[in-house]
Amino acid sequence: MIVEIISTGTELLLGQIVNTNAPWLAQQLNELGFSVVYQSTVGDNRERMSQVFNIALNRADIVITSGGLGPTQGDITKEVSADLLNRKPCLHQPSVARIEKYFSGRGIAMPESNLRQAMIPADAIVLDNDQGTAPGVILEENNKIIIHLPGPPSELKAMFTHSVIPYLNRRYSTQGIIVSRVLRVYGIGESSLEAKIQDLVKAQVNPTIALLAKDSEIHIRLTAKSEDACEAQKAIESVERVIRDRLGNSIFGTDADSLEMVVGQLLREKKLTVALAESCTGGLISSRLTDIAGSSDYVIGGIVCYSNSVKRDFVGVPEEILQSYGAVSEPTALSMASNIKHKFGAAIGIGVTGIAGPGGAVADKPVGLVYIAIDGPKGSRCFEFHFSGHRKGIKQRTSQAALFELQRYALEI
Amino acid sequence: MIVEIISTGTELLLGQIVNTNAPWLAQQLNELGFSVVYQSTVGDNRERMSQVFNIALNRADIVITSGGLGPTQGDITKEVSADLLNRKPCLHQPSVARIEKYFSGRGIAMPESNLRQAMIPADAIVLDNDQGTAPGVILEENNKIIIHLPGPPSELKAMFTHSVIPYLNRRYSTQGIIVSRVLRVYGIGESSLEAKIQDLVKAQVNPTIALLAKDSEIHIRLTAKSEDACEAQKAIESVERVIRDRLGNSIFGTDADSLEMVVGQLLREKKLTVALAESCTGGLISSRLTDIAGSSDYVIGGIVCYSNSVKRDFVGVPEEILQSYGAVSEPTALSMASNIKHKFGAAIGIGVTGIAGPGGAVADKPVGLVYIAIDGPKGSRCFEFHFSGHRKGIKQRTSQAALFELQRYALEI
Repeated sequence: MIVEIISTGTELLLGQIVNTNAPWLAQQLNELGFSVVYQSTVGDNRERMSQVFNIALNRADIVITSGGLGPTQGDITKEVSADLLNRKPCLHQPSVARIEKYFSGRGIAMPESNLRQAMIPADAIVLDNDQGTAPGVILEENNKIIIHLPGPPSELKAMFTHSVIPYLNRRYSTQGIIVSRVLRVYGIGESSLEAKIQDLVKAQVNPTIALLAKDSEIHIRLTAKSEDACEAQKAIESVERVIRDRLGNSIFGTDADSLEMVVGQLLREKKLTVALAESCTGGLISSRLTDIAGSSDYVIGGIVCYSNSVKRDFVGVPEEILQSYGAVSEPTALSMASNIKHKFGAAIGIGVTGIAGPGGAVADKPVGLVYIAIDGPKGSRCFEFHFSGHRKGIKQRTSQAALFELQRYALEI
Repeated sequence: MIVEIISTGTELLLGQIVNTNAPWLAQQLNELGFSVVYQSTVGDNRERMSQVFNIALNRADIVITSGGLGPTQGDITKEVSADLLNRKPCLHQPSVARIEKYFSGRGIAMPESNLRQAMIPADAIVLDNDQGTAPGVILEENNKIIIHLPGPPSELKAMFTHSVIPYLNRRYSTQGIIVSRVLRVYGIGESSLEAKIQDLVKAQVNPTIALLAKDSEIHIRLTAKSEDACEAQKAIESVERVIRDRLGNSIFGTDADSLEMVVGQLLREKKLTVALAESCTGGLISSRLTDIAGSSDYVIGGIVCYSNSVKRDFVGVPEEILQSYGAVSEPTALSMASNIKHKFGAAIGIGVTGIAGPGGAVADKPVGLVYIAIDGPKGSRCFEFHFSGHRKGIKQRTSQAALFELQRYALEI
């Protein structure tokens, strides 16, 4: 089945926003076994949009659009396809009721203009929107399908997941079920990872194994196809087990797990608390840890010790250490970790010091040199890193390394 | 002049990467006065790519492609247009020499496969690549133009800026010079902003005035067109002056200025230092401030006081205040700001406390309630905010508000 994704909206044509809906849909559809072969973008112009829909219906089996389902005069997607397919739009009462409820739940009356959103081309399948007001629409016409989805990513994703996937699975049931799983790997290069699982990658049939290098991590995507979801799941699990045996702790999570989420779960399970003394990351690690709801249960707090005086007077790094080894050194990092742990009464203390650049480098301490120390029930350890890139990149990679080492440490407790 | 941007590459169709080239090109072209009306994406498939090029040449005056100029068998963009326009590809000796030099400069011999990149359709204008090996190509055919650019963003941007813009300016010299400037506005809603400058927006001719609402700020884009760059600049400055008179400090910066950059410059100029006590933002404000190179000159540090005990024992908020008013209150925020200022010996102290959610709300303190306090040479003040959205959004909006209030405060000193 050939799919074309059409993104509508003048803001996309002007380059004012980056299109994240199209790649998300493409990924989902490919995983489901559909071939996305074309993607197009067109503005809110009736004639041009109609031509683009027409070309798409000629060359694809399934056309999926995003955007243009809002309440304003510029929202014309459904009208254009209604015209093109000769389907008179009618007011869809269940959608009117749902939109009215949406507004009344927020204590406001529904503006008249939102009735536009409930005007649906004849003989359409209507898709409910549990994140906003615009209903989605599926139009079937001579073995071709048009699916109109709303533009806001949260609405589009929820509607695709809850309504479109079940619809596609029903309609193309011969395709079988596709199940996929991403293993997220940190701390190992792409080529060494490839070498470790090369035989599996070469022998892959079902599930397939694909590697994708992301910024500071690698994704291993396992995709299994079967008549039966349980079978597909089992096929993935058996390959996953072999890969986990070979990569061990380098796999820090699966699917949408972020490192801060995985670390947070682990700290919560093991009833551990953490305190941080951050120099070069300036609070980024604390900020990432506290992006997770409920993190106040395990994050006690931290000190951003950007100046030497704060390292000395508030974190308690001895003046002698700062003098003899410098602020960017293993002894300083270790002292930061151990002191913040004791002061804040945390189970684990983390100390991070380094040179984020572009200034601050000295003879034997280049930009990108970072020390990350951890102190806790398993004793103290310190890691030296040499990161490359710009300031924000070095901060980001340092935070990633610190969270990963924290996970490894906590796993041992 | 109607432009179509065509992005090529199977990785885009699979959704493995987000397309940032197309919006960048669209922005540039719109600023130059061209209308980008269609954008398409197609994989590395000869037949489909040829059809997509053909459709584009029928509906647009200028077709700009990105990608597919590499040395592999999958890189077919130039071959497809050579076939379509009947232009025999020939080896372009100056490009061979440039590519050989590129490799020899890195101490390696040019792989044979890179010769593919120097195969150029007949009668083409060749564009040098100062960031990589692939040359770009311009093909003129019956008043239509195809421009092939390389896919890597750094190569595409440099080639577009250094070669394509001068070419377009020469060829369409009647278009004049376009100069634009973005005024970045914070702390005022889109509709009230519109009301304040409505007469200017309605009367706009040259420069034009466009408003664009972004997450927690609004951009006012002024675009002037003239025969002469100086004239265009003057036209922008005269409208900018009127807008600044009406909006005052709400305009926090221009063009690519981020709030942390603007605040940093101001603190540096005024020789002010800052220290932060952050609760609900968990270190995000410190992290943003320290994203700027040289920020160690004015950021002394901070305490991430995620727990009440850290607020009391390390920031020094009196137990009575925490007991009587609660951790999320104006007195707590003020005490945090004043104590962190004194303890860290900074000119300005900032205290931030709030409920980022989804948990933590109590009867009279809903999710999104945030207090931001500032203490310094102009005395202390506290601001109450009610933000909506998810946890990360509330953290982000809080950090934006804090940096903006810090700027306003520092401007008075």
